[in-house]
Amino acid sequence: MKKTVHSNAPAEKLYEQVYDYLLERIRRGEWAAHEKLPSIRELANQLDVHRLTVFKAFQLLKLNKKVFVKDKSGYYVLPDSLMLIDTQQNPIISACVYENSLSEIHQVKAEYQFSKALLDPNLLPNHYLSSYVKKVFDLYPKVLGTYSTIQGDLELREALCRYFTDEYYFHLDADELLITAGSQEAIDLAARLLVKPRDTVLIERPTYSPAIDVFRRQGADILPVEIHPYGYQLEQVESLMKKYKPRLFYLNPTFHNPTGYTVPPEQRKKLIELASSYQCLLIEDDPYRDIYFGQKPPLPLFSYDTTGCVIYIRSFSKYIAPGLSIATVACRHPLMKSLVKTKSLSDNGTPLLNQKIFLHYFFSERLQQHLEKLRIALEIRKNIMEEELAETGWKWSSPAGGFNLWISLPEAPSMEKLLEKSIEQSISFVPGSICDPLREYHSWIRLCYSYLNEQQLRDGLNRFIGIFR
Amino acid sequence: MKKTVHSNAPAEKLYEQVYDYLLERIRRGEWAAHEKLPSIRELANQLDVHRLTVFKAFQLLKLNKKVFVKDKSGYYVLPDSLMLIDTQQNPIISACVYENSLSEIHQVKAEYQFSKALLDPNLLPNHYLSSYVKKVFDLYPKVLGTYSTIQGDLELREALCRYFTDEYYFHLDADELLITAGSQEAIDLAARLLVKPRDTVLIERPTYSPAIDVFRRQGADILPVEIHPYGYQLEQVESLMKKYKPRLFYLNPTFHNPTGYTVPPEQRKKLIELASSYQCLLIEDDPYRDIYFGQKPPLPLFSYDTTGCVIYIRSFSKYIAPGLSIATVACRHPLMKSLVKTKSLSDNGTPLLNQKIFLHYFFSERLQQHLEKLRIALEIRKNIMEEELAETGWKWSSPAGGFNLWISLPEAPSMEKLLEKSIEQSISFVPGSICDPLREYHSWIRLCYSYLNEQQLRDGLNRFIGIFR
Repeated sequence: MKKTVHSNAPAEKLYEQVYDYLLERIRRGEWAAHEKLPSIRELANQLDVHRLTVFKAFQLLKLNKKVFVKDKSGYYVLPDSLMLIDTQQNPIISACVYENSLSEIHQVKAEYQFSKALLDPNLLPNHYLSSYVKKVFDLYPKVLGTYSTIQGDLELREALCRYFTDEYYFHLDADELLITAGSQEAIDLAARLLVKPRDTVLIERPTYSPAIDVFRRQGADILPVEIHPYGYQLEQVESLMKKYKPRLFYLNPTFHNPTGYTVPPEQRKKLIELASSYQCLLIEDDPYRDIYFGQKPPLPLFSYDTTGCVIYIRSFSKYIAPGLSIATVACRHPLMKSLVKTKSLSDNGTPLLNQKIFLHYFFSERLQQHLEKLRIALEIRKNIMEEELAETGWKWSSPAGGFNLWISLPEAPSMEKLLEKSIEQSISFVPGSICDPLREYHSWIRLCYSYLNEQQLRDGLNRFIGIFR
Repeated sequence: MKKTVHSNAPAEKLYEQVYDYLLERIRRGEWAAHEKLPSIRELANQLDVHRLTVFKAFQLLKLNKKVFVKDKSGYYVLPDSLMLIDTQQNPIISACVYENSLSEIHQVKAEYQFSKALLDPNLLPNHYLSSYVKKVFDLYPKVLGTYSTIQGDLELREALCRYFTDEYYFHLDADELLITAGSQEAIDLAARLLVKPRDTVLIERPTYSPAIDVFRRQGADILPVEIHPYGYQLEQVESLMKKYKPRLFYLNPTFHNPTGYTVPPEQRKKLIELASSYQCLLIEDDPYRDIYFGQKPPLPLFSYDTTGCVIYIRSFSKYIAPGLSIATVACRHPLMKSLVKTKSLSDNGTPLLNQKIFLHYFFSERLQQHLEKLRIALEIRKNIMEEELAETGWKWSSPAGGFNLWISLPEAPSMEKLLEKSIEQSISFVPGSICDPLREYHSWIRLCYSYLNEQQLRDGLNRFIGIFR
């Protein structure tokens, strides 16, 4: 794992290419666990490279615990659960799959669900929402017969432009917005467009776990940037940018997931300067902006950007309407043009129905009033969680917004055992290591307070504390 | 282009890896058109390879018209519209984008739209559809507050299983179905899961153009398989499978787009045998199955498959509800498990609202009655198009289903000029070369009869024939 995370690879070395080639074939199961790889001589002939190059690739495979040596000169595939192999019984359908660790945790059925950062559906104005749907059909009777454009419904993009300009001084044109089916699609599209194998990508540590998986799937070398209650150590960011020339920095600077931290305005300005100097794009993921408990958060990075180095991803799924899956991406041309083309091969545009419902719902006065109520309800739930945990001695920074507590346990428990026991008692949570590009943070956990109601929060936390003890 | 299409590449040669590396950087604009590439010596040092290897990579770049030689020994980037470069003014946002040729044509605004294989929205029972939406909100009041699972709504998957089993003898389990946002997403997910750079992929010739782009984006070497009114030349398919060990064969054997041809049942059975013998997956795209004009088409390939070599993609967007964007993929485990994981990093599941609306609409009796009317309406439109073209001397096989005529013009016109003149007069069509992995078929065009009403068809075709003459 070390190499993937730390490798300094502006130029791709030949033996690394051979390494990639071999690793890919191992992942696909062309050689099974404990099976012998072809000899150095054979591979050198086959790939038209020097034997020393194959030897160096083998050394790297060994170092990274992908193969082991036996009988002096034979290299054998090492069975390894960390290797992301999907072992297939039938070679006809063998395939390499990148894991989505968070998604595995989310498949756990639990009565006390502290793992998914989702909103309790009962906190949404469901009856009111459905009346908007009916309105949409009166306004656009042929909406179900019509494809959206790839870039997204123009009426919606124009409304979002006005909103972003009014709220955050974005000065956008509708052509600079793309509508996607949620922020996951947006992150994936940006990664597919911008990241090629061995490009360096900066990612906050800890971070939103599926983003790690998305950039890893693109073959990126991932470098972590620690996030603290006060933001980043910008000297560290600068030295990473200088040394590794990263392609982009994926960040979530407002009510950060999982920590809840918010990067202050001065750091935002400075970050834009650094990104421009070192030609590093900033992918700003901003899914929790409206869920603040005190004052409004600082303006997005995009508001400070005059050089076109920020790609702003704004999801509305989490607290507006998860069932609609609507997010939007703002960035400048010609990057936007390329992003739209990338989407055109991934789907034929976000469904029009969803965009039209979102348009009429989001910009209604009642939704804005509802958001106010939602903030209060979530703050209450956060307070309950903090109350229940007050006696434990566990540590966290009380977040000023968002859905999660990021908690440091007094000593590293056996996380596997804790998770196993919890699931047995119908409780789910996210182990810290899943949020860490380095897969450490062994004594941290993320608990989400947005999904359970007040009584469930108290009962579930009591049970969880009991298990821990 | 020759190399991309014909290269026999089970094992990746070193100089080809260097070629890929250089091409990727040219695409990104690291060296602009007319700019000099680093010397062979420099690159050999930088990449840790022999100078001869770089030399061979340069020769290949030259052969493929990516660079030209000047001053005896200098290699310069050749400006080339076919190179799929998105030239960026700002290096900070330089990126390589794979084109979607069909999508370019589709952006043309035209009064007489013969290019998009879309259904006229007036042929859908829009009023009736919206009443189903209201029903969905009564049944699932919290549908907008709820995420779907990644694999798709279980109620919908179970209903589709019963349908596929009753109609096509599929013998499926709900776990063997995935719901996607249209067939484009399904094709893209399968490509991402299964195809790595330099894998060989078989594709029909002609074919659905964005599929070519999707597999090319994955770095596949594409080998064409001619489709004829009687199907394939199976000896050719077998020899390709034998020689090139393709990873998969992407095909659309029922009312094939663009030709309208249908592969007969005996060939379907034989194809399954070949695919199993040579361990080549078959991706069966089946978006027109319900649009037959005479008798029902033969069963899908999936019905004959006992070895798990078929991935069946069934879109319901084209004629059920384009605004919902619902498709489904059927395949066996463990492939399905991997496909679901691949989707989990691309989006968080297809929106639940769309799945629930589709469920109640598609399985209603009224929809099945409506399909009968739709077939009649489309057959009438097809007949009108054939009537109008009868006097031209153009040639085509009258399709027994689908949305398109695939027409051979008497002699190859200047397609560029014909397209330009047509667009000037507000007519759009698809030039045959776009549907061809080899970019030939210069005297062929695809005209779609599903989007315009009867009068528009007559007027538009008269105008188009006039332009041609």
